[in-house]
Amino acid sequence: MGKVLIIGAGGVGTVVATKMAGLPEVFTEIMLASRTKSKCDVIAEKIGNNRVKTAQVDADNVPELVELIKSFGPDIVVNVALPYQDLHIMDACLETGVAYLDTANYEPLDEAKYEYKWQWAYHDKFKDAGITAILGCGFDPGVTSIYTAHAAKHHFDEIQYLDIVDCNGGDHGKAFATNFNPEINIREVTQKGKYWQDGKWVETEPHEIHKPLNYPNIGDRESYLIYHEELESLVKNFPTIKRARFWMTFGQEYLTHLRVIQNIGMAGIEPIMYEGKEIVPIQFLKAVLPDPGDLGENYTGETSIGCRIKGLKDGKEKTYYIYNNCSHQAAFEETGAQGVSYTTGVPATIGAMMYLQGLWKKAGVYNVEEFNPDPFMEKLNQLGLPWVEEHDIDLEL
Amino acid sequence: MGKVLIIGAGGVGTVVATKMAGLPEVFTEIMLASRTKSKCDVIAEKIGNNRVKTAQVDADNVPELVELIKSFGPDIVVNVALPYQDLHIMDACLETGVAYLDTANYEPLDEAKYEYKWQWAYHDKFKDAGITAILGCGFDPGVTSIYTAHAAKHHFDEIQYLDIVDCNGGDHGKAFATNFNPEINIREVTQKGKYWQDGKWVETEPHEIHKPLNYPNIGDRESYLIYHEELESLVKNFPTIKRARFWMTFGQEYLTHLRVIQNIGMAGIEPIMYEGKEIVPIQFLKAVLPDPGDLGENYTGETSIGCRIKGLKDGKEKTYYIYNNCSHQAAFEETGAQGVSYTTGVPATIGAMMYLQGLWKKAGVYNVEEFNPDPFMEKLNQLGLPWVEEHDIDLEL
Repeated sequence: MGKVLIIGAGGVGTVVATKMAGLPEVFTEIMLASRTKSKCDVIAEKIGNNRVKTAQVDADNVPELVELIKSFGPDIVVNVALPYQDLHIMDACLETGVAYLDTANYEPLDEAKYEYKWQWAYHDKFKDAGITAILGCGFDPGVTSIYTAHAAKHHFDEIQYLDIVDCNGGDHGKAFATNFNPEINIREVTQKGKYWQDGKWVETEPHEIHKPLNYPNIGDRESYLIYHEELESLVKNFPTIKRARFWMTFGQEYLTHLRVIQNIGMAGIEPIMYEGKEIVPIQFLKAVLPDPGDLGENYTGETSIGCRIKGLKDGKEKTYYIYNNCSHQAAFEETGAQGVSYTTGVPATIGAMMYLQGLWKKAGVYNVEEFNPDPFMEKLNQLGLPWVEEHDIDLEL
Repeated sequence: MGKVLIIGAGGVGTVVATKMAGLPEVFTEIMLASRTKSKCDVIAEKIGNNRVKTAQVDADNVPELVELIKSFGPDIVVNVALPYQDLHIMDACLETGVAYLDTANYEPLDEAKYEYKWQWAYHDKFKDAGITAILGCGFDPGVTSIYTAHAAKHHFDEIQYLDIVDCNGGDHGKAFATNFNPEINIREVTQKGKYWQDGKWVETEPHEIHKPLNYPNIGDRESYLIYHEELESLVKNFPTIKRARFWMTFGQEYLTHLRVIQNIGMAGIEPIMYEGKEIVPIQFLKAVLPDPGDLGENYTGETSIGCRIKGLKDGKEKTYYIYNNCSHQAAFEETGAQGVSYTTGVPATIGAMMYLQGLWKKAGVYNVEEFNPDPFMEKLNQLGLPWVEEHDIDLEL
């Protein structure tokens, strides 16, 4: 059906390449590219059958990206590289007329903002060029936004309260490690909290608001209100929402480690001079910490991510909970990557499939909830991330 | 009386230069040298009156050291640089026939051993060349060793039990900082514990043994048995000692920070490859942490370091406690450096004075307890580190 270029050969890239390789009727040709070609080669070799071509590319270098896109000729570029690189890859897609999909919004290297403004500013350019750009098509953002669109379409007349709840109930057996790129993870988790209420953003101190929430098959876990990027597009696309919050579980040890990492200055995103060279502390820390891609083997337990919604249906108040639980071990057995990579990579695969099948194809830059959720929701059940719905339960919303 | 070359322009170098500058009858000419000459210039300018000359020198480069020593012509070199550099500076002193004094034993860059063997191996060379080398002339090692020698000379026939107790009851107001070079501090504090008992070393896990000890004018503080280098020379030079231990106070937050620093790999002393360059994590961390030299201004509280001794005098059991309390603020007001630098720098100054006055002058490599403690003890009282003695008190030894 179409050719796909995947950029980024971490855990998520592994999952995307592996999943796509198993869908030859959709993904006729696959190329996996990253700064380090040998990382792509390892993944391609494991998949076998010469299904996946590999290439070296510096995703910060637009001319290099353009050259690669022109020579391979993909129908869509799936960007699972670093968020800093989103705009460069979008520029290359614009120049070559190729569709674009990513899983995390652009952020500038020197400030942790988590705003869509930079990417939304590309809307007219993509529209005029007749190209589709699909933003935030991982799990959160991604599936959580599609869950919300599904709820709005099938179960509510008016969504009023939305809590996105993200629990990693897994145990990787290390004293400290992050589940995805430590640099992005620490930047995200140590920022101030923020939620939407009555038409405006309310800011909190980092981890100021927290409470135990109960997760299916996991139990009670202390959950912290943090800002997460899908909130920005969801309150824009579902204006009936009165309050939208994002909750994530953290263990005490994890938080202690984060606090110390900040105290000692290793979360810093400003470069310091070290032996005549500018080094960004958090990037150096990333090089010292365990590679999240190596966490899979002994990772036990499950993730549980979903949306808890309260609103109106047929004039009556209604509560609704939709979620997926993903086993780290099952993810590792299938793809060689742990659950956090799996839950991000499978939705990216489905999003690219939606585009190639012509189901999610419109000129401009869009968040995933602006497309029809139905065919995507169907594929989630078929491709390893089945969802569960509960109606009219007590949700503490 | 003599010329002195100080190598190292950190907090201790600041104290040594300042103290020596105030003793023109002993230190007729002073030169302060370090890798970064501008750091020396700042200190010299603050002292004023052109009392202190400055120079640039790489203390790892023996020919450069030799050249500087030859051109300035000091009678003694006071090494308050890094412990890794001890042997290079000793080599340069041997080559030029100049006396040597330091405050911390040599350790190789790639292993944290805290053993005197490398420096003791220089004894015959110094002896044959007719040069004096004085090892470990700070507070601990240094004053604690001289306290022990004083006790042995004046108060005991036989020292049997020795506890060196080191409390920093100060508050620098930072979330985390080390009181001297963070690299050395963290290496020292995170190693396994070790103490001397009945003729052999007993090893413990890091921080395995701890209890609250009471410190004068400070109160009870949780104190941890750690290994400290003066134990090695003291049990050799006072063979009647049955048990020798070293206790240091740490706050819970300090220990939590250390634990995390280890967990995340930032205490590592093996280089990792980062952007094509070998970087040692703990050295990079040092560059990110607050400079211990900058802690002085708002540092409140006192240090209290001393020796608690039990043994025999005139056939009867006797206990004895000798200590000094040092105020961080008084130290800062006098020298611009905090108490930990002050308690190290003043003894180094006195040690160099002892040498120049001919009181501590013998060819070979010696630890401070091998010299006559009396003139040194007298100077401690005169130069800012007065000592207090308590006899026959309950010491929990």
